[in-house]
Amino acid sequence: MINQHMYELGSAPSAIRELFAYGLERKAQIGADKVFDFSLGNPSIPAPKAVADALIDLVSTVPADKLHGYTPAQGTPAVRTAIADSLNRRFRTEYTAANLYMTCGAAASLNICFNAISNPGDEFIVVAPYFPEYRVWIENAKCTCVEVLAREDNFQLDLAAIEAAITPATKGMVINTPNNPVGSVYPASDLAALGSILRKKELEYGHAIYLIADEPYREIVYDGLDVPWVPGFYENTLVCYSYSKSLSLPGERIGYVLVPQTADDWQRVYAAVAGAGRALGFVCAPAIFQSVIERCVDEPSDVAAYKENRDALYGGLTELGYECVAPQGAFYLWVRSLEPDATAFAERAKAHELLIVPSDSFGAKGWVRLGYCVSHDTIVNSLPAFAELKAEYDA
Amino acid sequence: MINQHMYELGSAPSAIRELFAYGLERKAQIGADKVFDFSLGNPSIPAPKAVADALIDLVSTVPADKLHGYTPAQGTPAVRTAIADSLNRRFRTEYTAANLYMTCGAAASLNICFNAISNPGDEFIVVAPYFPEYRVWIENAKCTCVEVLAREDNFQLDLAAIEAAITPATKGMVINTPNNPVGSVYPASDLAALGSILRKKELEYGHAIYLIADEPYREIVYDGLDVPWVPGFYENTLVCYSYSKSLSLPGERIGYVLVPQTADDWQRVYAAVAGAGRALGFVCAPAIFQSVIERCVDEPSDVAAYKENRDALYGGLTELGYECVAPQGAFYLWVRSLEPDATAFAERAKAHELLIVPSDSFGAKGWVRLGYCVSHDTIVNSLPAFAELKAEYDA
Repeated sequence: MINQHMYELGSAPSAIRELFAYGLERKAQIGADKVFDFSLGNPSIPAPKAVADALIDLVSTVPADKLHGYTPAQGTPAVRTAIADSLNRRFRTEYTAANLYMTCGAAASLNICFNAISNPGDEFIVVAPYFPEYRVWIENAKCTCVEVLAREDNFQLDLAAIEAAITPATKGMVINTPNNPVGSVYPASDLAALGSILRKKELEYGHAIYLIADEPYREIVYDGLDVPWVPGFYENTLVCYSYSKSLSLPGERIGYVLVPQTADDWQRVYAAVAGAGRALGFVCAPAIFQSVIERCVDEPSDVAAYKENRDALYGGLTELGYECVAPQGAFYLWVRSLEPDATAFAERAKAHELLIVPSDSFGAKGWVRLGYCVSHDTIVNSLPAFAELKAEYDA
Repeated sequence: MINQHMYELGSAPSAIRELFAYGLERKAQIGADKVFDFSLGNPSIPAPKAVADALIDLVSTVPADKLHGYTPAQGTPAVRTAIADSLNRRFRTEYTAANLYMTCGAAASLNICFNAISNPGDEFIVVAPYFPEYRVWIENAKCTCVEVLAREDNFQLDLAAIEAAITPATKGMVINTPNNPVGSVYPASDLAALGSILRKKELEYGHAIYLIADEPYREIVYDGLDVPWVPGFYENTLVCYSYSKSLSLPGERIGYVLVPQTADDWQRVYAAVAGAGRALGFVCAPAIFQSVIERCVDEPSDVAAYKENRDALYGGLTELGYECVAPQGAFYLWVRSLEPDATAFAERAKAHELLIVPSDSFGAKGWVRLGYCVSHDTIVNSLPAFAELKAEYDA
């Protein structure tokens, strides 16, 4: 008589969380340095010193009733202005506080968007492989999650397949660039082409189709690559952001939804975002971290350590003969399973103390995801185990 | 084509927020000390010093990647254990971490409960006057909000009316004690009687009926009154708690859901709570405040200042001839409107710079709510304005 769907969501084993729990247990048994845990996306780089400085200064100088008091539902105006100004400096945009709704992180941002713009029965397209919670949230908004596979050769957008998947019921599409789990960054040319397709379909079906840009990895990018600003390519874009990765604050639940002025009836959309925040209980994002963001909004992400990890893991595995997608951003490596059943492969890897997530969790077959937001030693020391695993399949 | 209901929720004026915004504007015009703003429930007492000490110590001693990292979805085990231990000391219970799911505040706790235990079409009973967002959240779970008026003489539970309102579709009932907006605390005898009614109806209809105890004001209580521990009176109770009021941390979004072992199939209910948290995007409550709560869980609330305010306001208004409900807890005073239309009365009060919320917002007619979590001076200085207002009606 309780809600069966919620019960199943709460008790169904998540492959990633199960693997992480197994890893903790295994480390306790044989020592942390003997287990090579690539299961999670928890940043290994600590938050910048500016965050600690801001926290201590805020606690020391701002009266507690102001510091920890309710902010407006959509967030403190000064914080939203600081974020808008930062975006304007970086992307030559003209946003103000009125475009921003502060949230407690990416899960909140995405949930709010799905609920704000959809009606039951609408469809949202996701690009597989994809972050598995997208489906949970889309279905919780009583909508249908439509998977379109990425291109097989390079895991970029398959524009023809996306166009073919759009129906009169399509209310939106989620893209995640830089991408979890494959590490790809979508180039400007593809975003421009995607924008043209969406605009054409909007005209054909006579209603808005929203592009939801989920961008927690926007700043985690390598080799001087530029991550294009998605709203510059398509008017009806909603940006979902979180500081979890860029400032290494995953536990603090702080992010935002941006509704650009280019969106049709953007103030109505913003009101619906605020309404969804209210209905779901996401009003007033954590106050002290709103203030921290105001002070640290231009703090650079420390990408150097992730790049070292990427180079060591991608280089090492490629040299051993594994097929890997070269990551352009984020901190995940997508590796071809050595047998068609990725779950069986991940299980065999476990015997070598290698904890890797099968691609089935991400809506794709035959690959595994390795999170390289770990210590550099973990990567270097794991390579002999990967060599043994390969030898086992080659034998 | 966006969600019309969300748009309306986000753009409909909330009486409380409108009044608060008017107050800010008016204070800028004529000076903050000339405006008597009783509109909000933002604690005026600062968080205890122990909170600032904990924050500074945590930032100074815990490595940033640990301090700000993801916690398990349901919260850090040590934090949940500390809360369980504290409850056990106070209420002679036997809870463990397994009974507790950490949330980002009361809105999250309640939303999670409504979604975890209900199916579309179920009914939840609320006791009017009530916190207006209850209806928003119940309806967002596709359920029906059934209002039962409190007793007219003392705003306590009307047990006969509650019993009469229970139908085969009743999935639960929300109580809020100490109560916002009337300040009443439900005595043990009434909770025992309510428990008997609910048990009888469970037998009659053959399914569980949940009592959701929304308790952010549990520690804000006067005159040595004891707030009974609701799960002690009824097995299928779910406790929703927030540290917003007790530790004056409303902006920090930290609280919990407690599923006691006495609930039918409590582990299934807990799993549904976890599933609803996942579906709604409420996993991993803000990490640093989880750690703060672990250290401050037994910190007493500073009730003395609220008591002084209560006495000054209740005493002052009663002496002027206003009819008030004597508050036993929380920090609101419920005052009879001087005309049948409470909205018109609140509007006339505005001309005397008195900002008070009409009862219509709370599902009741003919009263107003005054939040006395304000400076003591505001109360003392407002009394002449209340005298003028009364004189205007008496003339």
